[in-house]
Amino acid sequence: MDADRIPPHPDLDAITLQRVLEALVDPVRRSIVTQLCDSPADLKCGSFDLPVSNSTATHHFRILREAGLIRQYYVGTSRMNTLRRDELDRAFPGLFDAVITANRPTRMAGNGR
Amino acid sequence: MDADRIPPHPDLDAITLQRVLEALVDPVRRSIVTQLCDSPADLKCGSFDLPVSNSTATHHFRILREAGLIRQYYVGTSRMNTLRRDELDRAFPGLFDAVITANRPTRMAGNGR
Repeated sequence: MDADRIPPHPDLDAITLQRVLEALVDPVRRSIVTQLCDSPADLKCGSFDLPVSNSTATHHFRILREAGLIRQYYVGTSRMNTLRRDELDRAFPGLFDAVITANRPTRMAGNGR
Repeated sequence: MDADRIPPHPDLDAITLQRVLEALVDPVRRSIVTQLCDSPADLKCGSFDLPVSNSTATHHFRILREAGLIRQYYVGTSRMNTLRRDELDRAFPGLFDAVITANRPTRMAGNGR
């Protein structure tokens, strides 16, 4: 039943550098993946801190999902988001970390506290 | 005299992740920086293998220069190009290497031969 609501995701083989860069060139989308990266758990779409409307945010989540950066699934009525980090690291070693690090306003000496 | 012909370049402090990603999202511009990266010497604009007209190529060189990815200078009548690699690596550690590695059609086990 829930499978009907789960949107399509590209396989790892179909993830291209072009699509990944097109996704990451947008600052709102970089904010989404940075917040996901910094969160200890998967996040539902409504819980991100974003400077755009819900419908615009939905568009950005779709671009990220179709580029292969995030995976979406349902828990009840909430659409959850998780980073496809391991797959991205295999496809494009170092790229995700470099962008996320560069995207943070300050480079923290130590994370987690 | 030549100084009049040298186009403006942003200082390292003015190089932003946004501009760098906007530059690298274009496949022709990724090809330019990849060819520069793989060349043992600086290259003049006319010596790149690019699928676009000279005037379009000039546009792409300008975007790369204004984003801080390349430095241009003259030798005689030739406009030469060099990567600002050390500066980029300081500003955005790992980003340039990750994009260039991902951009190469095959991941070579060893470079240089």
